[in-house]
Amino acid sequence: MDSINIRISYRDTDKMGVVYHANYLVFFEMGRTELLRKLGYSYDKMEKEGMFFPVVTAQCNFHSPAKYDDVITVETRIIELKNVTITFGYQIKLNDKLLVSGFTKHPMVNKNFKPARIPQNLKELLLPHLEPNEK
Amino acid sequence: MDSINIRISYRDTDKMGVVYHANYLVFFEMGRTELLRKLGYSYDKMEKEGMFFPVVTAQCNFHSPAKYDDVITVETRIIELKNVTITFGYQIKLNDKLLVSGFTKHPMVNKNFKPARIPQNLKELLLPHLEPNEK
Amino acid sequence: MDSINIRISYRDTDKMGVVYHANYLVFFEMGRTELLRKLGYSYDKMEKEGMFFPVVTAQCNFHSPAKYDDVITVETRIIELKNVTITFGYQIKLNDKLLVSGFTKHPMVNKNFKPARIPQNLKELLLPHLEPNEK
Amino acid sequence: MDSINIRISYRDTDKMGVVYHANYLVFFEMGRTELLRKLGYSYDKMEKEGMFFPVVTAQCNFHSPAKYDDVITVETRIIELKNVTITFGYQIKLNDKLLVSGFTKHPMVNKNFKPARIPQNLKELLLPHLEPNEK
Repeated sequence: MDSINIRISYRDTDKMGVVYHANYLVFFEMGRTELLRKLGYSYDKMEKEGMFFPVVTAQCNFHSPAKYDDVITVETRIIELKNVTITFGYQIKLNDKLLVSGFTKHPMVNKNFKPARIPQNLKELLLPHLEPNEK
Repeated sequence: MDSINIRISYRDTDKMGVVYHANYLVFFEMGRTELLRKLGYSYDKMEKEGMFFPVVTAQCNFHSPAKYDDVITVETRIIELKNVTITFGYQIKLNDKLLVSGFTKHPMVNKNFKPARIPQNLKELLLPHLEPNEK
Repeated sequence: MDSINIRISYRDTDKMGVVYHANYLVFFEMGRTELLRKLGYSYDKMEKEGMFFPVVTAQCNFHSPAKYDDVITVETRIIELKNVTITFGYQIKLNDKLLVSGFTKHPMVNKNFKPARIPQNLKELLLPHLEPNEK
Repeated sequence: MDSINIRISYRDTDKMGVVYHANYLVFFEMGRTELLRKLGYSYDKMEKEGMFFPVVTAQCNFHSPAKYDDVITVETRIIELKNVTITFGYQIKLNDKLLVSGFTKHPMVNKNFKPARIPQNLKELLLPHLEPNEK
């Protein structure tokens, strides 16, 4: 599990005074990007090596809204790891209160956008973050 | 079923040259807003009457990306209608090619954010748009 | 002068209930894109021909805010046309009330991002839209 | 002068692979919000006290683009301080290279959106950040 903190800025809110719902997908992305960066797989590195992880499915469950200036925590886990796909699970919290949960599923594709096997060395780095019960 | 057209603008794209994935949730929202408006339920009217439909679950399945300047079609249906919740289903297409599908589930809440029954007159207007097999 | 209409959607608003100020730059861009498209210069065509118009200066004057669901009009003019730069002027209105005015200045650059002369045929198409007093 | 760091995320970029130009206004806002917060004037506090600083003019000069994953620095200064208006100046840098400069001008308004004098105690806190030559 990896976690990052994000302060909600004005552009993230809508006229209900809370975070516009589509922005939680942005926060999910920040979470998985940081997890991969900490494993040595920055986005730039992966792009140079022709490794892409487009989103094929995304799901969000909205429990309670974040507000302007809140500092939220995005917890990112790997909840499924197959030969060609990774599924990340997310829990967004304010202090210890769960605000939003969800997952995103990503096949690995190469620079020609063809499905490709996730390299063994990346898989080994990902395995310690695998927590299959969290969905 | 109701459908609207949207031209993809620059702000919608990311550095992959395609629509940033979180923006499809924005297009879903535009789709359901227009369906409700055509039934006489503009957002302003509903707000004044203390009827809100926050999103509790959203799911997107990404089949193929939309690109800058594409004119996409958002088809919006009602796929489930209960006493307190509506579920909208969406198909986003370019010409006849399916790009993105998904659904959003919404409880009705009143101005105190308490769950409330969907009024009978709104329900009757929604029923003709109910196509339960589309998910 | 060319004008387009835009309906304010939820994502455009912030928690003040009005359009988030940075979004007017997005509306300016929609205005100039449409003006150029009507002259036969879609963004795709220009990109293929290696013609780019990056923004070097942008200014916005905010008179009155647009609100959710308003249908605003963006009027786009060319207020200066030189060998290498175009300056667009904008007036965003709700009915006839001026909400926001501003301008953006763009050098033309080629595919190597070097300044380049605006082609004579484009210049001739732009000239009828030149209204130098509007700033 | 106050400075903050921001990592460029995917949603900030456009299909040119660089930060979408309107987003620099978002970064300016983050800069001035942090400066005010450090002076004890968080947005929430000001809202509760009925002090608002809407933007009336914003200008951006784009020198060089920021790219995905860059960690940029936003330097915020006060470049003019009058009885009713504050003007903030901004310099956005990557390492020591200037990417974007600009300013925003803000009248103070009260909860009825009428112009109001900036309170003396806030003015005294702002004065040390006044660097009038930076524009």
